[in-house]
Amino acid sequence: MKINSKHYSSIWYTASDDRVLYIDQTRLPWELIIREMKTFDDGIRAIRDMEVRGAPLIGVAAAFAMYAGSRSGELSAGEMAEQLVATRPTAVNLAWAVNLMLQGTGQSLLSKALEIRQLELDHARRIGEHGLVLIEEIAGRKGGEPVNILTHCNAGWLATVDYGTALAPIYLAHDQGISVHVWVDETRPRNQGARLTAYELAGHGIPCTLIVDNAGGQLMQEGKVDLVLVGADRIAANGDVVNKIGTYLKALSAFDNRVPFYVAAPSSTFDPAMPTAMDVPIEERGDEEVLCFAGTDCRIAREGTRVCNPGFDVTPVRLVTGYLTENGRK
Amino acid sequence: MKINSKHYSSIWYTASDDRVLYIDQTRLPWELIIREMKTFDDGIRAIRDMEVRGAPLIGVAAAFAMYAGSRSGELSAGEMAEQLVATRPTAVNLAWAVNLMLQGTGQSLLSKALEIRQLELDHARRIGEHGLVLIEEIAGRKGGEPVNILTHCNAGWLATVDYGTALAPIYLAHDQGISVHVWVDETRPRNQGARLTAYELAGHGIPCTLIVDNAGGQLMQEGKVDLVLVGADRIAANGDVVNKIGTYLKALSAFDNRVPFYVAAPSSTFDPAMPTAMDVPIEERGDEEVLCFAGTDCRIAREGTRVCNPGFDVTPVRLVTGYLTENGRK
Repeated sequence: MKINSKHYSSIWYTASDDRVLYIDQTRLPWELIIREMKTFDDGIRAIRDMEVRGAPLIGVAAAFAMYAGSRSGELSAGEMAEQLVATRPTAVNLAWAVNLMLQGTGQSLLSKALEIRQLELDHARRIGEHGLVLIEEIAGRKGGEPVNILTHCNAGWLATVDYGTALAPIYLAHDQGISVHVWVDETRPRNQGARLTAYELAGHGIPCTLIVDNAGGQLMQEGKVDLVLVGADRIAANGDVVNKIGTYLKALSAFDNRVPFYVAAPSSTFDPAMPTAMDVPIEERGDEEVLCFAGTDCRIAREGTRVCNPGFDVTPVRLVTGYLTENGRK
Repeated sequence: MKINSKHYSSIWYTASDDRVLYIDQTRLPWELIIREMKTFDDGIRAIRDMEVRGAPLIGVAAAFAMYAGSRSGELSAGEMAEQLVATRPTAVNLAWAVNLMLQGTGQSLLSKALEIRQLELDHARRIGEHGLVLIEEIAGRKGGEPVNILTHCNAGWLATVDYGTALAPIYLAHDQGISVHVWVDETRPRNQGARLTAYELAGHGIPCTLIVDNAGGQLMQEGKVDLVLVGADRIAANGDVVNKIGTYLKALSAFDNRVPFYVAAPSSTFDPAMPTAMDVPIEERGDEEVLCFAGTDCRIAREGTRVCNPGFDVTPVRLVTGYLTENGRK
């Protein structure tokens, strides 16, 4: 989507000079920095340090990391795949993309990586189209009043290649002239909502309001939320959703206030091998994410404060109104 | 309670030199600053700028502000009462304390203020004693394993005169040798959990772990929370609870995971004139609390980002397991 009227995607390849380029998301919203993924280690670092993040984008970045690694030939594709999967154990798209890279013969790793990128792009746009119908239905009932949508974390174009998952329907609705307004959870500890979602929505010209993670329930109680749209890191066979820590709390309050709660994700996020998400290992992340505010050196508690920092939670299927995938709404 | 083995309370009077002294809580946990409330305006400012905060303490501070104001005689007691009540419209204890100050004749404002301080101190200790029984019951079932208690915001001794409301039972349990561990919600936007609750618990030697506000639901899903204890700013006649923004989300997840959810507050927090809390005006606070992290100049989003910052939410009575007041558990 757009930043100051110029179109961007989160990761791309320039054939003329054989370069893989991506936006370093750790510096947003303060600086728009484009980095090159020259080596496999660049790719591992980009994923591990969350320069690229968001389940769909991680998969695409992993595919390009294998292509970048293949140019030096130091590691086999299998060795690279193993290292990549260990980097972010919760992200099922990473394993999906890496497996696609390992399959088939005769096709170059570059051509496979480009195919995976295009596939994610198409999926995001189709998720957007299916979600657009949902927003149109609500807009119709509201007779021109803005449709208020709450989202958690960043499941926008920065989390995918373009469009996003949860935000894709919002971009399409806005571009069609439907009045939308987005409540953006700041999403502690890493503040992807404040840093990325507010940035990308404002960049594209969509009205949005930043709130702390504590506020969404109160807004729903007051009838100020028409729809909750979130992404997913993994969806179990029974429909349980693993997503950014705090998603479960918003699902509970949406359910309690009869606000529709939709999960938008490409079908690659569905893990048929996982019966329920209660079995998914929840990544524990470092203390500094909590103690130092959103990647700054701004400390929020005294040295020596003990911290627990689970990265994800599970939203049980009973709280989910529906799912948006490239194949439709269900 | 204690800071580095020395006993403190949040506000006190020294008769020898006629001084009202209090801890400036805006500088914690980095600096322990004691300020003097010399004038009525000092008192208004202390309450408005949240140098003192927490429903019970605000009431006591308001009482001392009227005493401080009476020394200059510029304003009548009625005029002072009116200005004080307008400072923090959500806090019912403030109105309660101010009304007590206006009642009766023959007794000095100083003696009334000291009486209100002693009353809050006694109430907090008795809330602690009633809650202690609850913790003892859970400790008995856990056979020596630590009792894990989650709390939101700061309802500790810094929010009262001493002991606290939600934290009072925890201090008494710890001092009796019961093994307790506290999950501390950081409590955005002002981070009273990270700054005050973690500080005061650690100062008294109680094991605690800081978490982001998004994490509590996940910890409850994993069975890591035995009890939720929170304070209240106002409790309606039907039992609905007005408390710090985000309390409702923790109540929902406690209910969903069958974790007991108790609200600890002096009976002065109950407002019989308010049928349900859905009628309580919710204070909207400034944008800078959200945009600049926890009172620092550390910005979390770009200039011009629109913000909504409700200070409180309502936890409906159906989600509350019980109440702890100075009169018992109900």
